[in-house]
Parts: sequence; C-alpha cells; structure tokens
Amino acid sequence: MAGSVFGKCFTITTWGESHGPGLGVVIDGCPAGLALSEEDIQIYLDRRKPGQTDISTPRKEADKVRILSGIFEGETTGTPISLMVENTSQKSSDYSEIAFYYRPGHADYTFDQKYGFRDYRGGGRSSARETIGRVAAGAVAAKLLKTIGIEIYAYVRSIGPITISDTNFDREAVLKTPTCMPDYEASQKAEQYLKACMQEKDSSGGMIECRIHGMPAGIGEPVFRKLDAALGQAIFSIGAVKAVEIGDGCMAALAKGSENNDAFVVSDGKVWKKTNHAGGILGGISDGSEILLRAYIKPTPSIFQKQQTVNKDGENITVEIKGRHDPVIVPRAVVVVEAMTALTVVDLLFENMYAKTDRIIEFYQ
Amino acid sequence: MAGSVFGKCFTITTWGESHGPGLGVVIDGCPAGLALSEEDIQIYLDRRKPGQTDISTPRKEADKVRILSGIFEGETTGTPISLMVENTSQKSSDYSEIAFYYRPGHADYTFDQKYGFRDYRGGGRSSARETIGRVAAGAVAAKLLKTIGIEIYAYVRSIGPITISDTNFDREAVLKTPTCMPDYEASQKAEQYLKACMQEKDSSGGMIECRIHGMPAGIGEPVFRKLDAALGQAIFSIGAVKAVEIGDGCMAALAKGSENNDAFVVSDGKVWKKTNHAGGILGGISDGSEILLRAYIKPTPSIFQKQQTVNKDGENITVEIKGRHDPVIVPRAVVVVEAMTALTVVDLLFENMYAKTDRIIEFYQ
Amino acid sequence: MAGSVFGKCFTITTWGESHGPGLGVVIDGCPAGLALSEEDIQIYLDRRKPGQTDISTPRKEADKVRILSGIFEGETTGTPISLMVENTSQKSSDYSEIAFYYRPGHADYTFDQKYGFRDYRGGGRSSARETIGRVAAGAVAAKLLKTIGIEIYAYVRSIGPITISDTNFDREAVLKTPTCMPDYEASQKAEQYLKACMQEKDSSGGMIECRIHGMPAGIGEPVFRKLDAALGQAIFSIGAVKAVEIGDGCMAALAKGSENNDAFVVSDGKVWKKTNHAGGILGGISDGSEILLRAYIKPTPSIFQKQQTVNKDGENITVEIKGRHDPVIVPRAVVVVEAMTALTVVDLLFENMYAKTDRIIEFYQ
Amino acid sequence: MAGSVFGKCFTITTWGESHGPGLGVVIDGCPAGLALSEEDIQIYLDRRKPGQTDISTPRKEADKVRILSGIFEGETTGTPISLMVENTSQKSSDYSEIAFYYRPGHADYTFDQKYGFRDYRGGGRSSARETIGRVAAGAVAAKLLKTIGIEIYAYVRSIGPITISDTNFDREAVLKTPTCMPDYEASQKAEQYLKACMQEKDSSGGMIECRIHGMPAGIGEPVFRKLDAALGQAIFSIGAVKAVEIGDGCMAALAKGSENNDAFVVSDGKVWKKTNHAGGILGGISDGSEILLRAYIKPTPSIFQKQQTVNKDGENITVEIKGRHDPVIVPRAVVVVEAMTALTVVDLLFENMYAKTDRIIEFYQ
Repeated sequence: MAGSVFGKCFTITTWGESHGPGLGVVIDGCPAGLALSEEDIQIYLDRRKPGQTDISTPRKEADKVRILSGIFEGETTGTPISLMVENTSQKSSDYSEIAFYYRPGHADYTFDQKYGFRDYRGGGRSSARETIGRVAAGAVAAKLLKTIGIEIYAYVRSIGPITISDTNFDREAVLKTPTCMPDYEASQKAEQYLKACMQEKDSSGGMIECRIHGMPAGIGEPVFRKLDAALGQAIFSIGAVKAVEIGDGCMAALAKGSENNDAFVVSDGKVWKKTNHAGGILGGISDGSEILLRAYIKPTPSIFQKQQTVNKDGENITVEIKGRHDPVIVPRAVVVVEAMTALTVVDLLFENMYAKTDRIIEFYQ
Repeated sequence: MAGSVFGKCFTITTWGESHGPGLGVVIDGCPAGLALSEEDIQIYLDRRKPGQTDISTPRKEADKVRILSGIFEGETTGTPISLMVENTSQKSSDYSEIAFYYRPGHADYTFDQKYGFRDYRGGGRSSARETIGRVAAGAVAAKLLKTIGIEIYAYVRSIGPITISDTNFDREAVLKTPTCMPDYEASQKAEQYLKACMQEKDSSGGMIECRIHGMPAGIGEPVFRKLDAALGQAIFSIGAVKAVEIGDGCMAALAKGSENNDAFVVSDGKVWKKTNHAGGILGGISDGSEILLRAYIKPTPSIFQKQQTVNKDGENITVEIKGRHDPVIVPRAVVVVEAMTALTVVDLLFENMYAKTDRIIEFYQ
Repeated sequence: MAGSVFGKCFTITTWGESHGPGLGVVIDGCPAGLALSEEDIQIYLDRRKPGQTDISTPRKEADKVRILSGIFEGETTGTPISLMVENTSQKSSDYSEIAFYYRPGHADYTFDQKYGFRDYRGGGRSSARETIGRVAAGAVAAKLLKTIGIEIYAYVRSIGPITISDTNFDREAVLKTPTCMPDYEASQKAEQYLKACMQEKDSSGGMIECRIHGMPAGIGEPVFRKLDAALGQAIFSIGAVKAVEIGDGCMAALAKGSENNDAFVVSDGKVWKKTNHAGGILGGISDGSEILLRAYIKPTPSIFQKQQTVNKDGENITVEIKGRHDPVIVPRAVVVVEAMTALTVVDLLFENMYAKTDRIIEFYQ
Repeated sequence: MAGSVFGKCFTITTWGESHGPGLGVVIDGCPAGLALSEEDIQIYLDRRKPGQTDISTPRKEADKVRILSGIFEGETTGTPISLMVENTSQKSSDYSEIAFYYRPGHADYTFDQKYGFRDYRGGGRSSARETIGRVAAGAVAAKLLKTIGIEIYAYVRSIGPITISDTNFDREAVLKTPTCMPDYEASQKAEQYLKACMQEKDSSGGMIECRIHGMPAGIGEPVFRKLDAALGQAIFSIGAVKAVEIGDGCMAALAKGSENNDAFVVSDGKVWKKTNHAGGILGGISDGSEILLRAYIKPTPSIFQKQQTVNKDGENITVEIKGRHDPVIVPRAVVVVEAMTALTVVDLLFENMYAKTDRIIEFYQ
C-alpha cells in the first residue's frame, strides 16, 4: 500500500489538498452493525476546526462531513465508508507567491524534490487540512472502541514553557479552554504566552499527552507491529511531531532498573501493576493498565518575521510570509492524536482476534 | 502481513527464540547483483554479541551466520535470502523457575495474556536474541545503501546520567570503547557507573543517537509512511525503547518558530540549510541534510534485587532473578538501531523510485 | 489492507453502493507529472454505461466523473487522486421486495451470512455499479501505461455459443458493435441469440479475451506475485468471472511438451518466441511477447422466469424478479477486464524497478 | 510485501533454490495452542516427493523437515514457525550446460531478463522444489483448518486425454494410484499414456480438482479479496498452472441464467442449494456449500527431444535437455494445490473474524 493508506485490518485511505474541491477518507474494514451518523463524525471534526478563539487563525472553515457510502438505515454495512468534507473558504490568492520559494520549516522544498512540482496553494497535501480525513476516520474508530469499553482522550500538557503539573482532572475540562489544557490557570498563562508570540510575529510549540482507558491486555503484535511501534508510526505521521514517548519516555533512560520496573500485584483476583512507568506496554503488548503516550510538536513554521530562504531559481532571498496562520497548532492537534491512536488500537484489536487456536475454534463453532 | 514481517519492498521476516534450535531472517525483495558474503553479515552480528567486556553478561554466544539461499557465485540473485544463526550456548535450566511467575518489566505476563502460554526459556521470542534476525538483515540493507553512498552509524550518547557532549568524533571511536561511547573519558565514567549498578544488583538505561549520511532529498511517503513515521515504527519496535526523537525532538516543543525554523541557503548551486533542527526531515520527506534520530532505552529489567511480583497461581510473591544478564543493554543495541534504520531507508528508497512519471518512462525506455 | 484495497504500489480503494449517494475510488501511489483530465477517465466510464443498445438494460446512468484531488494544473501531483461519480438514476422502490428473500445466483444470501444484514437496494455493494471505481482507476493506469508504450485491449470473444474465430481485427472494431465483438457477423448472430434469451426471460454468459501489447520482459514477482497470479486475482475479483486462462489455458493440460513449448529464436538481435502458447508469461514473469488472457463470465443471474428460493424467514418460496437487467453483462465487462489488467500491470511495473542493484545505483546517481 | 510473501494474517515467506543448502518457509501469524509435530508436516512433504513410481523422475529426495522455531512443548506459541528442508541429493553437474542457453518453456530467459543473471543449477528458484515451503506451510494450515471442521482434498482429474468421470470416490483412493487419480482403471490408462510419452521423449499436462468440505458461509472479502480472487492468485502462483476454474468454470459462459442459477431451498431449518454450479461462492463469499476449483497444468517443459532455442550469446541453437525429469508433474502438484488452498482459506477465515460489530464485542467481553 502507498503512503496515504493506514492500517492493515481497519484500513483508511485519506485524500485531498488544502485548496482542492475537498478532502476525505475511505475506511475499508469497518465491521457491520455499528450505529453511525454524520453527527458522530462532526463532533470530532469540530474539535479540529480553526477560527474559534483569539489564539488561532481567523480563517473560518465549515468542514461539514458527508457520508457517501457504507451506511444503511443508520448502521455500517461492512462495506467501505467514504467520508467527504468540501473545501469552502479557501482563497488561493493568499498563497500565490509561495509558489516561487521554499518556506523554512515547511515541506515546499521536499515536495518539489520528490515530485518535481507541487500544489502550492495553502501547502497542498502538506497542509494541516490533510488531517481532516484522519479525524473523520478516527471518530468512527473511537465509536467502535467505545462499544468494547475503550476510551481515548488527549489534552495539551504544555505550550512553550507553560505546563500543567496535575493530571488528575475532569475530562470535560479539556474542552473548556481554548488551549485544550485541562487547567484554567495554566491555560490563561499559555494564552498570554501565545499573544506575546503573536506580537513578536513568532509561534510556539507544545506537548500533547494521550491516554487509553479500558485497554484489554494482550494487544500488540511482536516484533514489528508491537503496540508501541504501531503507535510510534501513527503519531510520528502527524505533521510537526518531533518526538514520541511511551510511559516514562526519555526519563526511563536515566532511571535504574529498580526504579523503572513496575511490580505486579494481585488483589481481588486481578493482576495490577503498582506503578506504570511502562505506560501500559510490556514487550510491545498491552498489559491491561492505562496506555500513556506523549507527542512533542514543533512551533508553527509560518511566522510573519523576515526569514532567509531560497527561491525556485536558486537565489538567496528574504521573505515575509503572509496569510492566516495559527501561532500554535498544538490545541488543534489534540483530536488528531486521539484519532491516530484510535485507528491504531482498532487495527491491533482486530489482529489479536486470531492469536489463539481455541478462540478461533470457539468463533467458528 | 503478521507482526514479524517488516518492510513493504525490502521485506524481512524474522524468526526464532532464545532457546530453540536457532534464529534467523528471510529477506525478500533484495535486488539482484549485490556482492554479499557471510563475512559482511558476521561483522554486524559480532557487534551485538555479549560476553565481550566486564560490563556485559558473561554468556558466550558464537552467533555464526549461515547464508541458506539467495546468493549465487557471491552475488544476490533477487530471490529470498535466508540467514540463520544456530543457538549453541543456551542452558534452559537457568530459566526453569521463571516459568511460574511474571518478571517485572518483562513480557512474561503480556505473552501469557496474549497467547495463553509462552516459551519461558530465556524469554523465548521476547529475548534480546530476537534482534539477531534484524541485525543480519540490516547488514544486507547497509551494504546495499553503501553502493549508493548512504551510511548509517549510531553510538551511545548517554548511559544513566553520564553523557557525551561533543559529537564531533571519529567514527572508529565508537568501536573502541566497551560502552560504544565515542569519548574515552565519558566511557570510563559510564563503566564506573555501571559497575556501581552491578554492585547494587541494579541496572541502567541510556540513549543512542543515530545519523544517516548521504541521504538524498525526496525520501519518505506522506502521509502515513513519512520517513519519520517509518523510522518511528522501526525504532520503537526494538525492545526497551521508550522514546524516539527526530532532530531537536522534545526540545522543539519548547522552541519558538523563529528558533526552530532552518533557513534555506544556496551556495555553489546547492541548496543547504543553515541549521538542522528538523533532523533532515520536512513534511515527512528527507531534505538532503543529515538525518538525526535518538532512541531512549530503559534499564535492563532483569536485576538481582528482591522484587515483588505475581505467580501463575495468582499469588503475591517475592523473587530474586538469577542468570546472566547485562547491567545495560544500550551498547549492544547500537547495531540494532543501525539495522532498523537501514532497513527503513532501503524500503523507502525503493518506494520513491516510482514517484515521478518521467523517471518511470526513462527507466522503461 | 482490507478487501476493497487493491495494489501494493499503485494502490486503489473503491467505495460505493448501487443506491447510495455515489461511487468512487481513491488512487494512492500514482506518480507525479502525468497529464490527466476528467475526459481521460470519462471515456472509459462511458464504455461501461448501460442503456446504450437494445440488448442492454434500459436504465440510464449518467456516470459523470469528478476529480476531487491529486491534480494541479492538469497534472498528477503524486498525492492521492480521489474520483467520484454521483448516483442519479437510482430508484430504490424497484428493489424493495428483494429485501426479504435471496435471489438465486446473487450475493444476497452470502452478504447476510457475512455481515448480518445488507443494503439490498440494487444489490448494494455487490451491484455491477461497484465496477465504476475500478474502471475510473483503470483509466488512469492505462494512461500511465501508454506513456511507456504498453496498451491493453479486450473484446468479447463469445456470447453463449456464438464465437468469433478470427482474432486479426482492427482494434476500433471492438467499439463498433453493441456486443463488443470485433466481427460484425458474429455480433449480429449474438444479438439475435440475446433477443431470443430475452424472450425466454433468460440470460447468457460469454467470454472476454484481453491482450497486453508492448509489455517489457521481466515483469512479475515470483513466487506469489507472479504476473499470472496477480492477473488471476485481478480478473477473478470481477463479479461473475468463473474461469481465467493464460495463453493456451485449459488446452495446455491436453497438450504434450513438444506441442506446448515455445521455441526461442533470434532475429535482428532480438529474442522472439516462434509461438506463444505461454501467453507471454514464463515462470510468472513476462517474456516480452504479447500477454493473452481470457475471462469466462456466467450468465446474468437476474432473470424474469419463476425461480425457487428461500426468504429471510427461512421459507421455501417462488419468485419472479422484476427491474431492469441486462440479458448479458459480458460486453459491459470488457472495459472492467481492461481496467483490472492495467491496474495489475502498473503495480508490477513499479515493483520491478528495484529488482537489480545496478539500476538502483543508476537511479540514485 | 515482496513476491515470496503470501497471506495477510497467516503470512508465509518461502525461500530456497533447487541446489542451495536447503529450502524452507517462515509462517508468521499462526495462532498459539495448535498441537504440531514434524510428523504432521512430513506427511504432506512425502506426498510431493519424486522418485516413487516409474512415471516420475528417478531422483531421490529425502526432504526431511525440521522445525526451527515457534513450537514449545508440542504446541505452537504464536511466534513465527520456521521450517527447513536440507537439499541432499542435488548434483549441480547435471545442469551446468543450461547456464548458457534458455530452455523452451522454462523461466531461464525471463529470470535473466528480470535479474540480470540466475542460479541456473536445477532451475534455481524456479525449480519445482520451490514448492517445498508452500507444502510445509500448507500442512500447518490444513491442521488448523481441521480443528474447525474444514477439510481440503485434491486429486488428478485428467492426464493428457485420460480423464475420470466419476467423482464419487473414497478419499483414500487418491493416495493409492501413482497418478493420484482416484480411479484405478483411468490411472492405469494414464500410466500407459505417460510411458508412451516417455518413449517419445515427450511429456504430458493434466488437470487437478480440489474440494473444500465444511466451509462455513461468509468467508471472502469483497471486492478484491473475494474468496475466488484469493484462490485465483494462490493457484495461479503455482508454476505451470495455465487456467483456473471455480464451479462450472468455462462452461458457465455457455450456459443460460436459468441453467446456471442454483436454487436455494430450506430443509430441516437449513438453507441449501439444489445444485452447485457456483462452486460454493456467490459474490466472492462462501455460501456454505462445497467449494470446487480446478487447476489446468501444462506439460513438463523439460523434454528430451531436440529443441530450437537461443543461447546467451544471442545465437540460434538446437539443444537436447538432459537430466532427470518427470514426464508429468500433475500428480506431484496435487498436494501443492491443497496447500495453497489451505493457506488461502485460513487467511480469509481470520480476516472474517472482525466482520461484525457484535462478534467483536462478544470476543472482547
């Protein structure tokens, strides 16, 4: 499968550019009998929309999803589900000048190197709008996961130097701040930090944390499709992610074995781990505790300061980027991280169904 | 493809357990006409062997590779290359007691959860010996990459709190210290640190850095098989890796756009980047500069201290692990990181060959 | 990848049901720089449209294709190409009664067994309209193949007992008869045969022959993705195909080695085969001569005679199918066979590009 | 995945050449908990061995299988199963002259065209010995299928013009004749026919029929991994197969709808079909009745008559092939057809396990 196909069992193919007629996704391998409406998907898409706060681009994007196939009388039929969002607010004129030079930190140069030319309008396929297909498909995966008790939720842990320390919060709190930080005070500080960035014509990075609740033990396919390996690919495939951690992540490299090992304990007939440095994964397989991962996201490369770069004629030039850009993309990426996580988990859940002979026999009896 | 298959074009399938008859790999998709000998592969395998220094397990493993197919008159034929290493020094008796309980930090519990039972001898498939197949295949990938001018090399950047700061070193230096740190002084400090760990019956983690030299621009398949996404999966698939960074990694989340963007410049008709915060990847595609990644590795879970855990009868117990275990696996993982990187790069190089119509026409003329 | 994904390098995902909002396909892996317009695709779609002659269903289907992504300034960009056709003439009312019973020869029963229920309107996903996505993608593949001198063309060799014996004909002749038989007399006989079938409320099968001109030697990936194996999957995936032959096909089983072997000869420095019993494939790899395959297609199962069957309540019943159905689908399947052949050939052409080390070195120089 | 990898869930990778150290297969994705011994596999391998009758090559091949991984205490562990057969009786000298010319009907020419050179000893990878890996893996698949009540058996239906008409026979009869024809008289005629071929230094083709008993309804993944499409790929991937039929096959093209449709009937609460023209597959999905397929196999290309061909210097020459060759390969291919069928069915059985939401919920409760 080529690069825009993801997943072996629950397979998605995303398509679309920033300024073409639309964007979308085809989901192949969604099981039959799942109740699914456009509203289920719209809720997710609305969470990635810009233009909603004063720390995001003033662009308005309606991003209304339409289900084109795979649903009959309100339920999935087991056949491919095609989802589409039309592009409505795109102004190509904003971008015409970037046709002729390479924006620092963007994919303009590498797309030209790979394909010989590129649809430069709004970044084309390398636009953040590309994630629409992921989020729409992720909403379907998340709905399916809920039916078996698995819930995934992500939130912004830090923006620039502003971070939240307490991660015991109400899940609804994530939706209540413009930063998606579930901590009102930290969020206000982050907003001030971002406004300062905007005044300096600069931008900020940040970090997203994602948790999977209710994950059964046994999920993940050693040795190359381990749960952490599959999540690693999924999260790194999101534009601007520069690091991924599982559990203690980088800190594990500093720890000693006696500090890092999680002791197993039994209580009430159930096996638990006293701690969760491992982030819920041992040997690439879920251990039944909460899965914890982190995605580190670079600052938006589109800044309004003067920057040095090269044009298509191979000349050194100075540019000032125009247009409507978020000073930080981290809050809008929260739902993308959730989506990619959900897609990964569904895929590996299906693959695990034929791990044991006796379960297969039982299935086909 | 199932979990022990990796790569779409240059596809490897690894097999083998710690205490079975042997371990190996089949490479399918290696092009014809590559000169290849057992010696080429043995050099890589020797780098992952234990028992070579006083900071590693005293186990001796001969690990001699045998080529079973795919080579004729010293060259690859384009057909599958089967490589095998026999297990010779394995003593099952060392491990018999771990059949009955779950070692903290190991995959014993999760394998039982997934498969219902496990080959407990030496960790079975979750043993570090599983990497033999990866390294053997990686040696072939690396040889192929060299023919087009791409070289991959990794080294230990830190062990526990001991780190090297200067990364301007002679490549041969990596092979000269028992820690694989290319800095004699840091390596000595790390050895002392490890000996202290051993005395405390404890273990240490560490960090590996890997660089790809000579990488052409244009490699990587947006949006899900981006170069960083593919590397993310590859590196996270290595046991004990808990975090992966590309370029500035986690630090990018703290930076501002003006700090993180790499300016493009032209000199002598060539496009360069003034800095390389991006680690050589923009939009998931190589930009022609050096690729830089980091793998953070947890401390060896097999420590000789008393630990709390659970046995197969569901009872809380205290255990003291016996056997021959490395106080740190980081130095031995260096060649594994190189191998997985090489396998990933070869795969994406092949895939890139049909990215442009005119190159295809040229090829088939 | 799930069942509606086809191709490893040039990967297509089709979607859509007979009576949903539309049908389409996403092509991922089409190289950049191919001139492509909606007209290029429409030409192929028009060849599969019904309602054009008195031996086909009187249904009218406009089937206008729309390109939704992947094209910029008239050329492919290397990103996914999304193609869509809206359903316009579907009348669900025609089909409401088939919700309650299983039509003989149709997939109603098996879809219910697999998925628990089905979109019964017009056969849903098992409708012949499903081939719209294949044909649209096949048109793109065929355009790409033309740029390297490969042309694929199919025609009807027989309808029921009426067959053409002379296969030396002008290619345009295929488009000139309503049966797609490139033989005016045979076609007229076939039309009379079909009209007789219609009067008897019956239907007919037939056979399609497909040839690939200009195929370079060396294409096909032993041992499981041999050219004939890949074509076998592709052609059998078309609804109603019950047999596939390569070269002499079934007759080869009756022949002796001395009759079946094709002698190699050299003339003008080129290697040729004196005969082509093999149909252009030896050991699963193209030998540079014309590829020849045949698809045998069963009669349309929708006939208007009384038929015995079972309803969803598990009762034996007698039914008379209503609606608008072709007495033969063979002529409309010609372009589908071409499409699946083109998709298969493109995929294997790409895969062959990394078969030799020296060609890879040359590519990356 | 490259060309020697087969199957998406139950994935096999075969390797090995006729005259290398050995041949084998790695099975990845075999579920844990299946009792498996070398004897289970040896029984299948023994059925493909030559040198057992006076109508086959006098070559002796011991072909003893060894299990190298994936089994612990007599059961599969869920990890890759590596199987190997050493080459013991190969005499390279027999084949040295074929290094310099292209045998008609063989893959010599096409391998050279694809890979630039080839391991010519005994045909290298294109030797019939390549099927050892398939048969060994197929034995494991067949054992797994038996646990859920599915049995696959094939037999020779015809050799040259000699055919059996009665297919109501005892299954053991297949193993009792040297031709694998389950009809003593027909087999004797076929033996006489083959002896006449041998005297004329000629060879014969033939046809194999294969049946799947106990197949549940619902197996097959529309639209490209339909059961018939997957079987089509599997069977065409076997060397020398030139045609594949499902159910009535080619004859369906001659039939009318009223003749070809299979009526559904209910008796004792079970749905049956009165006839089985469809061969057990409707819309690419099994319908619960017996699956029936046929493979048409060309005559052995290695004949001892003088033949015209071309040498590597591009000269027209006449050759007389030497060595030890079967006058017919059809009887030895019977178990290969069974193996490929079993591998295909297992793969699609696994894939079907996640077709319905309620079954997934039930599984993870």
